[in-house]
Amino acid sequence: MAHIKVEDHLPGVTGLLEFRKDASQPLRELTQLLLRGPNTLTEAERELIAVVVSNKNECVYCTTSHAAAADAYYGDNHLSENVKKDIETAPISDKMKALLTIALYVQESGKNVTKQSIDRAKSFGASDMEIHDTVMIAALFCFYNRYVDGLNTFAPSDPVYYAEMAKRLKETGYFRPKLGYDDLKHKSYE
Amino acid sequence: MAHIKVEDHLPGVTGLLEFRKDASQPLRELTQLLLRGPNTLTEAERELIAVVVSNKNECVYCTTSHAAAADAYYGDNHLSENVKKDIETAPISDKMKALLTIALYVQESGKNVTKQSIDRAKSFGASDMEIHDTVMIAALFCFYNRYVDGLNTFAPSDPVYYAEMAKRLKETGYFRPKLGYDDLKHKSYE
Repeated sequence: MAHIKVEDHLPGVTGLLEFRKDASQPLRELTQLLLRGPNTLTEAERELIAVVVSNKNECVYCTTSHAAAADAYYGDNHLSENVKKDIETAPISDKMKALLTIALYVQESGKNVTKQSIDRAKSFGASDMEIHDTVMIAALFCFYNRYVDGLNTFAPSDPVYYAEMAKRLKETGYFRPKLGYDDLKHKSYE
Repeated sequence: MAHIKVEDHLPGVTGLLEFRKDASQPLRELTQLLLRGPNTLTEAERELIAVVVSNKNECVYCTTSHAAAADAYYGDNHLSENVKKDIETAPISDKMKALLTIALYVQESGKNVTKQSIDRAKSFGASDMEIHDTVMIAALFCFYNRYVDGLNTFAPSDPVYYAEMAKRLKETGYFRPKLGYDDLKHKSYE
């Protein structure tokens, strides 16, 4: 049970976004801009940053949601799993390998980002803006993971929920409001 | 030197906020709302959450800026230092001791927030909204600390800088734009 009274049928971040809507509005705007706004990194690549950070923070709700979204963007059901297992052997670009490595340092601490990891990203063509956005997105998910788990929200176990979440994140981005259990009953969720 | 090209005279987060202004706008809005908006926690108390989290993340720029702001709000030059040393013996309310303890768990991981720490806060009268905001602010500073240090921004050593920053944070909040070295030259900064 969540540490505060959120709507029972809204798991993960969705109940929190309803709990304090005035705060969720700028948060949604920031997330939409960083993950879906015009960028030389693809939506798929930016979702992958969310995946590796959330996975290392062991945030089940965020990891599963964004892995489903990243896989949907890549058109590869195993991509996130392969990246979570080993960035270096996953079928992604050298630039993305370097950027995800930076993201994993950010997950530990901003201070752990090495000049070597930045130089590697630059050597594969990463721009200052791409490095900036990688760090900012990684830091943002360190926020989300703590927000979601710090208030002990519920993470559904049914993959149907995350498939529907991925569809929404891909089709309508981060402004689409709450996805609850109720919305999925006709899809055999719970 | 920062990992990306930011304006040399803008230390800490100030250079980053100028680097990508479209992203800093919703970020400023969220921060202003959480730290300065109507709340049953005082501005001083909310700044203290920023202090303990930034301190534990060893983010010098954020810790020093928000400690200066918290001290200014409390009207006590030693308050932040006392809280950083030991929350339990610092001259703050029992409710704040409990909320800052939750914030420190959030700094480690959302998963580390114990039911016991939540119950303690509730026993001292903390509302669901206050617990929510404590977790959200703590998580937000886990974001800021990583953003600031992950891009290797510069933290001034001159206390005059942070005194001026505290004044701005207190008088004009989080919408006031960049505070650079240049602005402080007449105040014997550098």
